[in-house]
Amino acid sequence: MNREPLFITSHESRGTIKGDREYMTRIAVDAMGGDHAPFEIVAGAVWAAAEYGVALELVGKQDRIEQCLEVIQQEGFMSPCGKAGKARRVRVDVKALDIKITHASEIIEMGEAPGQAIRKKKNSSIVLTVNSVATGSSDALVAAGSTGAAMASSLFGLGRIQGIDRPAIAVTLPTMKKPIVVIDGGANSNCTPQMLKQFAAMGRIFSKNVLGVDNPRVGVLNIGEEAGKGNELAQQTYTLLEDEKEKFNFMGNVEGRELFLNVCDVVVCDGFVGNVVLKVTEGTASLLLKMIKSEFKSDILGMIIGTLAKPFMKRIHEKINYEEFGGMLLLGVKGITVISHGRSKAYAIKNAVRVAKEAVETCINKKIAESIA
Amino acid sequence: MNREPLFITSHESRGTIKGDREYMTRIAVDAMGGDHAPFEIVAGAVWAAAEYGVALELVGKQDRIEQCLEVIQQEGFMSPCGKAGKARRVRVDVKALDIKITHASEIIEMGEAPGQAIRKKKNSSIVLTVNSVATGSSDALVAAGSTGAAMASSLFGLGRIQGIDRPAIAVTLPTMKKPIVVIDGGANSNCTPQMLKQFAAMGRIFSKNVLGVDNPRVGVLNIGEEAGKGNELAQQTYTLLEDEKEKFNFMGNVEGRELFLNVCDVVVCDGFVGNVVLKVTEGTASLLLKMIKSEFKSDILGMIIGTLAKPFMKRIHEKINYEEFGGMLLLGVKGITVISHGRSKAYAIKNAVRVAKEAVETCINKKIAESIA
Repeated sequence: MNREPLFITSHESRGTIKGDREYMTRIAVDAMGGDHAPFEIVAGAVWAAAEYGVALELVGKQDRIEQCLEVIQQEGFMSPCGKAGKARRVRVDVKALDIKITHASEIIEMGEAPGQAIRKKKNSSIVLTVNSVATGSSDALVAAGSTGAAMASSLFGLGRIQGIDRPAIAVTLPTMKKPIVVIDGGANSNCTPQMLKQFAAMGRIFSKNVLGVDNPRVGVLNIGEEAGKGNELAQQTYTLLEDEKEKFNFMGNVEGRELFLNVCDVVVCDGFVGNVVLKVTEGTASLLLKMIKSEFKSDILGMIIGTLAKPFMKRIHEKINYEEFGGMLLLGVKGITVISHGRSKAYAIKNAVRVAKEAVETCINKKIAESIA
Repeated sequence: MNREPLFITSHESRGTIKGDREYMTRIAVDAMGGDHAPFEIVAGAVWAAAEYGVALELVGKQDRIEQCLEVIQQEGFMSPCGKAGKARRVRVDVKALDIKITHASEIIEMGEAPGQAIRKKKNSSIVLTVNSVATGSSDALVAAGSTGAAMASSLFGLGRIQGIDRPAIAVTLPTMKKPIVVIDGGANSNCTPQMLKQFAAMGRIFSKNVLGVDNPRVGVLNIGEEAGKGNELAQQTYTLLEDEKEKFNFMGNVEGRELFLNVCDVVVCDGFVGNVVLKVTEGTASLLLKMIKSEFKSDILGMIIGTLAKPFMKRIHEKINYEEFGGMLLLGVKGITVISHGRSKAYAIKNAVRVAKEAVETCINKKIAESIA
């Protein structure tokens, strides 16, 4: 399966020490997943490799990946670099990086039923990307294609952590203070209260170890504050968590508008609701910024003030832009899977690789395994 | 039950003609419902009465309502008047208005189980407010208290429109063009696909008659575009609507971020998800405006630009402020119920009374009954 890689070079000594030799974290990236694959994915990956000192395993059609790498070596690529401003040309010396290419002859498309697709397409880029982590060839993976396929292949390829029924996606949303963790952000559309309780446990470990929150407070996403509110799932989850109130530092129900008010650090919900929350947040922010832009264009005074206000608005955009967050961790599997936005371009992928590297360093999945056991 | 009203005056001739005598639409308002009851509720109601030429029936503790009216007559009340700016004093000549007071000795609190509460507390303000519409004393009602209690008492007091299994709340969210209708906005936490199909039919009638959209396009709120995506409810609703694609002008699945992009006019979901959407939209907008404010405060230049930008930001705030929308219509009952935000102050209640008056004028519930039959 693995052909001879195109570029393998000696790397700079920015890696961590493993045993008595120098070791660089290797991130496997599904080069074929996402709306802008493969070029933007490959570009973001090599950018991250150069900036954060990680090694890469790029998985996908070998000839297309090689083409991308050659173009990047010769011409670089355009990216807004996260300043929400105009794109500038990014140059990366690809030849100086430690890059392994793994050929994948198949691709799982967005519309395919995940479970079926990963069984049928054993040579798909996402299955082989997960395989790279499962076999120890890479330390973590980044995928921007079908979330369902990334989740299913991680579940089957890496296996569940004992005591966790279903893995879940941890999403971080910005607030005026610390980010809040919403879990599940879209891995499981149909959930049980027991699953949400497990999400609460994993979310707390994530909040503590990745975001540095001491004794994170847990809430249930609901449509009212009182105990009897909401659908059956929310009501029963409330009861389960209330029974172990101290263990979970359980704060009760949290309404949609309170997500951003720092009333708790981890909010649990099923993946359908969590994914809607994530995307509505994105949609509202984008609408509001558009409205502000158009309001500033309403007269000449507005245009002048709008121009003056631009750097401030850019900083806001940066604070809320999903590209800055890079990717969401899939928690509950025996390995590190970072799921990126399907619309990710190079800058978002660069940040997703950073998230993957940090997850390797904090050993988040091992901490979940230890804590659940 | 009904004591002698405090103020009944002849009204100005702004009403519509009914039969051969002048007729003024009368709106019943639950004066005891909401975080700021009764004062802000009464203030908003009389403000609306003066501004839109409607008669009122204020339902609640008679002595407290009378106190509120006296204070308003003598001192007026403070309200930001929707310009998102500082509050100014509003003066209303209460004595010149047509106001009926109906005493209610009980109040249903936020935490009570709605079904049980309305059966137990037959003299509660919400039950008597609904009763006023059921008996024809008023033409429509406004309630800012427990949504569950408003919904349950409307369902039992006014009755369901034939062919509708459960009433639903129609929420309008702003976009860059026409507002979009999200239905259900919180009346039913647990729904069936058949219910969502009925919501689609009611949402279309609302969009057409209240928002003036020709042949409104329907979408199912989901976490992906493809047919097989989402939870069972979303999948089955998709199938039901796809079977009558032309009748519903069905566009398929709509994701959270697309809500604001005018890809459709009516989006159906269960009341749990719809309520979360509504509140997350509110929370995100509020966070973003706070972030912008704090960004402008970061240096002196920012403070100057921020001051110049204030009038523009106020206009934005006005466009997205829930207080402007006033209230959400409960569709599917044989009468007009407007449900207001629990945090409503006078300005929001004033707009809720306007929504109620417009609903009376467009005969939305009769149009639903005719269309479903």
